[in-house]
Amino acid sequence: MLLALDAAEKAELNGDVPVGCVVIHPEHGLVASAFNRREAVQDPTAHAEVLALREASARLGRWRLSDCTLYVTLEPCFMCAGALVNARVKRVVYAASDSKAGACESLANVLSDARLNHRCEVSRGILEEPARLQLQSFFRAKRKKRIQE
Amino acid sequence: MLLALDAAEKAELNGDVPVGCVVIHPEHGLVASAFNRREAVQDPTAHAEVLALREASARLGRWRLSDCTLYVTLEPCFMCAGALVNARVKRVVYAASDSKAGACESLANVLSDARLNHRCEVSRGILEEPARLQLQSFFRAKRKKRIQE
Repeated sequence: MLLALDAAEKAELNGDVPVGCVVIHPEHGLVASAFNRREAVQDPTAHAEVLALREASARLGRWRLSDCTLYVTLEPCFMCAGALVNARVKRVVYAASDSKAGACESLANVLSDARLNHRCEVSRGILEEPARLQLQSFFRAKRKKRIQE
Repeated sequence: MLLALDAAEKAELNGDVPVGCVVIHPEHGLVASAFNRREAVQDPTAHAEVLALREASARLGRWRLSDCTLYVTLEPCFMCAGALVNARVKRVVYAASDSKAGACESLANVLSDARLNHRCEVSRGILEEPARLQLQSFFRAKRKKRIQE
């Protein structure tokens, strides 16, 4: 998760909400590291998780990531939670909750939906405090900048 | 929707489930046309809708697609429905329902979720019959091939 927090910092440089993500394979170790790039590349699907899943799949040469664990600094949204299920990710670990758009606990629980053809193991709240502070600091600076403009 | 059905046919050539999608802009017309390429490129996020949203954003140079209508031959899953909301798509039109993974009516209704920061207009069942037959024919041929092997 420390690696995911490091990745998140890079998102801020482009004015993107700082969310970072890594994918770990039991043998190959780190197979993907990504951060939110929606603003940087003007792509609505360029959340950290989607980019990391694409990177891990390219690295391993297969779309099924059923032996991988994904660490992300913020609770995944509907798009990202759906992508994690579609990729058959074994385990998802996230830091801060997202009361406005989180789909793994806050608004819904896509990762554990028994009607879908895959369920991910989930761990919440790992390094929650630094992840929350990183996000708060970003939004505080953004508001301050807006007021000054 | 006829263009989306045509696009879906191309997916079959790679052994991918035939789902096709187009994005229409009120002035520029067709700004994206895509089909499911999960197997072809071994990418779990390469559903027709995600690829079409990425193509439309690249074409228009912005991630907000609030003036666009997306046509797709099958009810979007959680990942794709979440992506449509994230991209602020104005209107979504789909043909066949997906009782196993559809997140726009069947298992959930992500596109109209009042808790999210955007809601898409939705039309269902347009050219449902040909879309359903296209999917059924693909799965029937797949089962037949499996039995013969």
